[in-house]
Amino acid sequence: MSDATEIAKAAKTAFETSQLIPSSERVQALHEIRRELEAAKDEILAANRQDLEAAQKEVDAGRMSGSLLKRLDLNKGDKWDSMLQGITDVAGLPDPNGIVSYASELDDDLELYRVSCPIGVLLVIFEARPEVVVNIASLAIKSGNAAILKGGKESNETTKLLSSAIQGALSKTSIPSTYIQAIQTRAEVSALLGLDQYIDLVIPRGSNSLVRNIQNSTRIPVMGHADGLCSVYIDASADPKKATRVAVDSKIDYPAACNAAETLILHDSILHTIWPDVAKALLAADVKLLCDTPSLAALQSLSPAPANFATHASPAPPEAYTTEHLSLTLSVLTVPSLAAAIAHINAHSSHHTDSIVTEDEAAASVFCRGVDSAGTFVNASTRFADGFRYGFGTEVGISTGRIHARGPVGLEGLVTYKYVLKSKGGEGHVVGEFGAEEGKKRYKHRKIEAATVPF
Amino acid sequence: MSDATEIAKAAKTAFETSQLIPSSERVQALHEIRRELEAAKDEILAANRQDLEAAQKEVDAGRMSGSLLKRLDLNKGDKWDSMLQGITDVAGLPDPNGIVSYASELDDDLELYRVSCPIGVLLVIFEARPEVVVNIASLAIKSGNAAILKGGKESNETTKLLSSAIQGALSKTSIPSTYIQAIQTRAEVSALLGLDQYIDLVIPRGSNSLVRNIQNSTRIPVMGHADGLCSVYIDASADPKKATRVAVDSKIDYPAACNAAETLILHDSILHTIWPDVAKALLAADVKLLCDTPSLAALQSLSPAPANFATHASPAPPEAYTTEHLSLTLSVLTVPSLAAAIAHINAHSSHHTDSIVTEDEAAASVFCRGVDSAGTFVNASTRFADGFRYGFGTEVGISTGRIHARGPVGLEGLVTYKYVLKSKGGEGHVVGEFGAEEGKKRYKHRKIEAATVPF
Repeated sequence: MSDATEIAKAAKTAFETSQLIPSSERVQALHEIRRELEAAKDEILAANRQDLEAAQKEVDAGRMSGSLLKRLDLNKGDKWDSMLQGITDVAGLPDPNGIVSYASELDDDLELYRVSCPIGVLLVIFEARPEVVVNIASLAIKSGNAAILKGGKESNETTKLLSSAIQGALSKTSIPSTYIQAIQTRAEVSALLGLDQYIDLVIPRGSNSLVRNIQNSTRIPVMGHADGLCSVYIDASADPKKATRVAVDSKIDYPAACNAAETLILHDSILHTIWPDVAKALLAADVKLLCDTPSLAALQSLSPAPANFATHASPAPPEAYTTEHLSLTLSVLTVPSLAAAIAHINAHSSHHTDSIVTEDEAAASVFCRGVDSAGTFVNASTRFADGFRYGFGTEVGISTGRIHARGPVGLEGLVTYKYVLKSKGGEGHVVGEFGAEEGKKRYKHRKIEAATVPF
Repeated sequence: MSDATEIAKAAKTAFETSQLIPSSERVQALHEIRRELEAAKDEILAANRQDLEAAQKEVDAGRMSGSLLKRLDLNKGDKWDSMLQGITDVAGLPDPNGIVSYASELDDDLELYRVSCPIGVLLVIFEARPEVVVNIASLAIKSGNAAILKGGKESNETTKLLSSAIQGALSKTSIPSTYIQAIQTRAEVSALLGLDQYIDLVIPRGSNSLVRNIQNSTRIPVMGHADGLCSVYIDASADPKKATRVAVDSKIDYPAACNAAETLILHDSILHTIWPDVAKALLAADVKLLCDTPSLAALQSLSPAPANFATHASPAPPEAYTTEHLSLTLSVLTVPSLAAAIAHINAHSSHHTDSIVTEDEAAASVFCRGVDSAGTFVNASTRFADGFRYGFGTEVGISTGRIHARGPVGLEGLVTYKYVLKSKGGEGHVVGEFGAEEGKKRYKHRKIEAATVPF
C-alpha cells in the first residue's frame, strides 16, 4: 500500500469514527488548537523565517515574485492574531449539521427526515499562504469533515509545524489526530486524486491553472473557481451617480480579487450622457481603459480631453473581453440593447458575478433572470460577492460551478445530507403493504414541521 | 465545428434564451407534448414494433436478453398510458425554481436573496426503455433545463419519433425546439463529454459499467449511482417480528432493484433466538442464503431442518459481501457488536441505504449517525428508498454521490441557485464604504423572511 493510500484510508477511518462525536466536542477541539498554536508560536514563527529566507533567495535569483514572498510571512501585521481569531470565529458559528430540509410522515409512525451531515474526506490544495492550513482545519473540524491539506512548497516548514500543532491539539480530544493530515509533495497529490473510494471532495484554492489541472486529473468532485471574469452593465435608464460609483468600486476596490470587474458594458444610448463622467472617474482613479470603437470615439470627442486620457485609454484588442486583468485595467464594450448585454455576458463571463446599473425594475428583473451567473446584482458593486459580506461568517471559497455549491461558499458548502427513516411503532414498516390495489395502504406524505433533529 | 459541438451550443443557447419564460408556459408546453404524443401514437408504436422486430432477431440469435426486449415494448400493459400520465403529473408538481433558501439585508436597502434556478444543459444517457425520453424531457422542461438525450441503440427508431413529437410540440410554444435534442451514437456522447463549456451535468441511468465509464471520461459533474449494495442489520435488541418482516421485504419485494438488500448482518446474540425464524421466512420465500460460519452453524443445529435448507443455504464465498446479487440471493454475516456492523457497512456497502432492526433508541441513533449512507433506516425496509415513496412526486434517479444530490433525487436535484443582490435606494451600494475603521459602515446582516421571489 502506498503512502498516499495509507493517508487516505486513515482520513476515511478518522471521518467514520468521528461521526458520533457531538458538536460541542468539535468546538472544544478548536479552542484546544488555538491554545496549542499560541504555545508553539515561537517555533512556528522560526520555521516561517526559514521559509522566508529560502524564498528571499528565490526572489533575489528572480525565480519568485515579491508578492508571493509577502504572502508567506505569518508575522506580518496582524496576520498571526487574525489567524487565531479565525479559529474562535469558526468555533462560534452555528453547527451546519443536523439541519432538517425535508420532513414527511410517509405512513402512520413512519417518519422521513432529510438531515444535513458532513461530506467525508476533503482534499484541499492551496498555494503560498500558510495560514490557510489553520483556516481549513477549523472549517473541516467544525463541519465534521476530515481533511488532507497540501500547501505550496514555499511554505513547507511553516505548514509542517502548523499541522503538527493541530494534530497535537487533536490528540488531547476525542477527535482522531489523523482527522487533519498535511502532505508535502505533488506526487502524493497525484496519487490521492485517484483514490475516489476514500476522498469525497477536492477543493483547490489558487490559480486558474491549478484548478483546471486538478479538474482534468480526477473523478472526485472538485469545488473550485477557475476564473473571475465579472462585468458591470450600465443600462439606458441608469442613474449617472450610481453608474460611476458601482463601476469605480467594482474595478478599484481590490483589483486583484476574483470579484473585481474586468469588463464594463455600455448601452449605446448613454455614450454621450453617462459614459463620459464614468470614464473620467475611472481615469482619475488610474484605471486603464481598453475601449471598443464607439466608447473610445465618445471620449475622443470630449474637449478638453479627460485627465489621463492620452496615457490610459486605448483600443481594445479582441482578447480583452475574455481576459481576467486582475489589475487596474478595464475592457469597455458598447451594446445596442439589454438583450445584447446579457448575451455578451453569458458568452464571455466566467459566470461568477455580474451587475446591472439601472432604474428600470423590469430591466433589472430581466438581467437577474437572464444572466447565468452565481451572482446577479442590481446597482451594487461586484465586490459584494464574498462569504463574509453575504453574512456566512466564513468563506470556504467562491465556486463558479453550478453543482452542490455556487458563488461564495460558507460552512453549508462542506455538508451534504442523508435521509433518516424511522418506523416508530407497529410491526416495522415494509413496502409490500403499499400499493394501488384494493386492501393495500397508500402513502400519506404528511408534512412534518422540524427545523433540526438531534444528530 | 463538429455535430456534437453544434448540438451542445444549440442546447446552451436554448437554455439561455428560455430563462425568461415563465413557469406557466413550461406547464403549457408539457400539455402540448402530451397532445402531440397522443396524435402521433400510431406512428410511434409502429416505430416501436420495428425496434421490437430487430430486437427479437437479436434475442433469437442469442445476442440480447429477453428481459431487455421486454423493456423496449412501449405498448405493453399500461406503459403508453402511464408515460402520458407521467407528463401530466410532472406538469402538476410545484415549480422548483424561485425558492429562496437564504435572504439577508446586508445594509439599509441592500437585499441579498439566494434563489433556486435551473442548472443549464443536461446530458442524459440511458439504456433500453424508450419512455425515459419522455420522462426526462418532462423533468427538464419543468425544471427549466435544456437536455440532450441518448437512449440505447435498440430503441433508436422509437426514441427518434418520440423526440420529434416533443420537438414538434415545443415548436408551438415559446420554448425553443432545440431545448430537447436526441442523439443516436456513442461517438456523439464521447464528443459531448468533452464540452464542459456547454454541458453542465451528466446523468447516466443504467448499469454500473455505464456510470463508471462516463465518470472516467469527463470533467463535467456526473449525477448517477454506481451500485446499490444495501444491508439490513438485526441488532441484539431487535423485535423478532419486525426483524423477519424487514429482512424479507428488503430482499424479496423487488430483488432486481438497487434498493433491495444484498447483505443481512446479525448480532451474534440473536443467532439462536431471532435468526432461525428470519431464516425460515427467507428460505420459505425462495431466498438463497450465503452464510458465514456462525450463521450457517446456527441453522444446521435446528431440528428438523427448515424447508429449503438443503438446497438454499450454503457457505458464503469471500466476494459475497461485495456482490450486488440483484436476485433472490442474500449474503449473511455475523458480528459481535453494533460498532462492528457499522464498520462492515461503511467498508462494504455502496452508501445507498442501510437499515437497522432494533428496539433500542440509542442503538438506532448510533446506527443512523455512524452509517455513512444516503439512507439510514430504523425498523423499515430498504425498499422505501425511492423518490415517489419519499413524496417527491417523481424520481430523476438515486445518487450515491455526496455532492449536490444524495439518495433519491426529485426535481430539486435538477436545480441550483444564484445570488440576487438588489440595491433598492440611495446612490447604489459600493464595498469601499464598509470597513472596521472609524467612519466606515458595518454590514447589518438582518434576516429577511421570504420563501419565494418572483423569478
